[in-house]
Amino acid sequence: MQNELLDVAIIGGGPAALSAALNCRQRNKSVCVFGRSLDSSLLFAAEKVDNYLGMPDIGGEEMLNRFYAHAVKNGVEFKECRIRQILSMGDHYMINANNEFIGAKTIILAVGLNKSIGIPGEAEFLGKGVSHCATCDGMLYRGKKVVVVGENEEGEAEADFLADVCKEVIYIPLYQPVLNLKEGIAQKEGKPKAVVGKDGKVAALELADETISCDGIFFAKNTAPPESLLFGLETDGKNIVVNRKMETNLQGVYAAGDCTGTPYQIAKAVGEGLIAALSAAEEIDRRNRK
Amino acid sequence: MQNELLDVAIIGGGPAALSAALNCRQRNKSVCVFGRSLDSSLLFAAEKVDNYLGMPDIGGEEMLNRFYAHAVKNGVEFKECRIRQILSMGDHYMINANNEFIGAKTIILAVGLNKSIGIPGEAEFLGKGVSHCATCDGMLYRGKKVVVVGENEEGEAEADFLADVCKEVIYIPLYQPVLNLKEGIAQKEGKPKAVVGKDGKVAALELADETISCDGIFFAKNTAPPESLLFGLETDGKNIVVNRKMETNLQGVYAAGDCTGTPYQIAKAVGEGLIAALSAAEEIDRRNRK
Repeated sequence: MQNELLDVAIIGGGPAALSAALNCRQRNKSVCVFGRSLDSSLLFAAEKVDNYLGMPDIGGEEMLNRFYAHAVKNGVEFKECRIRQILSMGDHYMINANNEFIGAKTIILAVGLNKSIGIPGEAEFLGKGVSHCATCDGMLYRGKKVVVVGENEEGEAEADFLADVCKEVIYIPLYQPVLNLKEGIAQKEGKPKAVVGKDGKVAALELADETISCDGIFFAKNTAPPESLLFGLETDGKNIVVNRKMETNLQGVYAAGDCTGTPYQIAKAVGEGLIAALSAAEEIDRRNRK
Repeated sequence: MQNELLDVAIIGGGPAALSAALNCRQRNKSVCVFGRSLDSSLLFAAEKVDNYLGMPDIGGEEMLNRFYAHAVKNGVEFKECRIRQILSMGDHYMINANNEFIGAKTIILAVGLNKSIGIPGEAEFLGKGVSHCATCDGMLYRGKKVVVVGENEEGEAEADFLADVCKEVIYIPLYQPVLNLKEGIAQKEGKPKAVVGKDGKVAALELADETISCDGIFFAKNTAPPESLLFGLETDGKNIVVNRKMETNLQGVYAAGDCTGTPYQIAKAVGEGLIAALSAAEEIDRRNRK
């Protein structure tokens, strides 16, 4: 990929992402799918699917494997990683893929169902003390006190990173066991109840039994809410807002699949992936004609 | 089907119709697909399709056959016919299937790309002298002079029907050969250029070389424009207007596939068929709860 911009970066790894990628290749666009492994798709766990027209009575894992093979055969590239942040650079986007920055002309978000817990105050104070990415925002909390809430072991790396920067780091794991935390990080048990704000920014995290005062709260989640990926992205509840061309409110950014809302079905995801791909291809062709 | 209302009547026969039908069955709704034979779908003639995720490199005919088999396996019924008219009965619809009337609670229009020639004045005077169905509207022209424009041999049956009712019938075939016309029907060669109106209704049909004065013009087309199927259906150009739930402006009427607009692609049609089916099923369940 070197320094050349990708035509299309696709975030996800389920049916919507794979259909989008396949159809970008059909339109002769360079494309990379940034996602977690195939088995993280909800489809992987489906015992049987019988309502995707033309593929009767098939297990979810086999279906995903066929989808993946179809995309690979057409030249789709994959990069297994968790994307936490996409930056707008004006006429293109930079994707932070485990701190490797990759540029793309257009983005298709196919990030699946937003299962973010979303405690009260979390969305309200996003960017005002709430963050989903330590390497993105950690420097803003230099010398300050932060809490890290980890839904999985990636939270430990977030906490470790922050320990080098912040005055005090408290780690609240929502899983077991915690394997590896830097010295000096305090660990607490408890279930977060609410983000407490004061003067328009974060002041504390409320647990069932106590309230921890802090300057920042980092949530390391299995699924980050899409608006935390891309600043200014319009959402409606937990869905990304799209029109019939799968355009979001941001120029050059499209969305497809479960992240745009119900029904959470393969045919819907595959159809929307196709449409998003064609819309992205059209946008790239339009710019190339200029 | 007897006198019981169908849950869902689907008009069409391509991928959108078959996906809708399959998914109605998955929701345990009674469903019948009213359409022409499979080989009338545009997909039938496609030499190769490689962008429907999971079914790489496949011929259009084989794909349609697999789609059809999947629907049949799930209990979808088919009725091969051309639907020219659907009547709203308030809380349900009546489908005129070659003059057999069949009732349905909801309708999914998956009628494909509207290839109607649409000469100037044709849309404007629809219902004001222009018709696409002799058996529907013929009685309105009792004792009058009408022109029938036939894109295929079904136009001959339309003209024959009108010959029993009207004072004068002129038949303009746009195909060859004309096999069977009742005595007394005048046949003219020529390409229709425009519908000429006067005082808000049809006054004549303009051909390249002459203008035929008349009270009514019947177009027997390979594809009728969808707004001629169902009175009051909102269209935008040649597309049926739908929202993201595939609802049209008419209660209980949904649309899916090429008839809702670009892209004219299988994945889009299959996805929209699914969504239309789930929306129809939801509407039926909602009514049953009342």
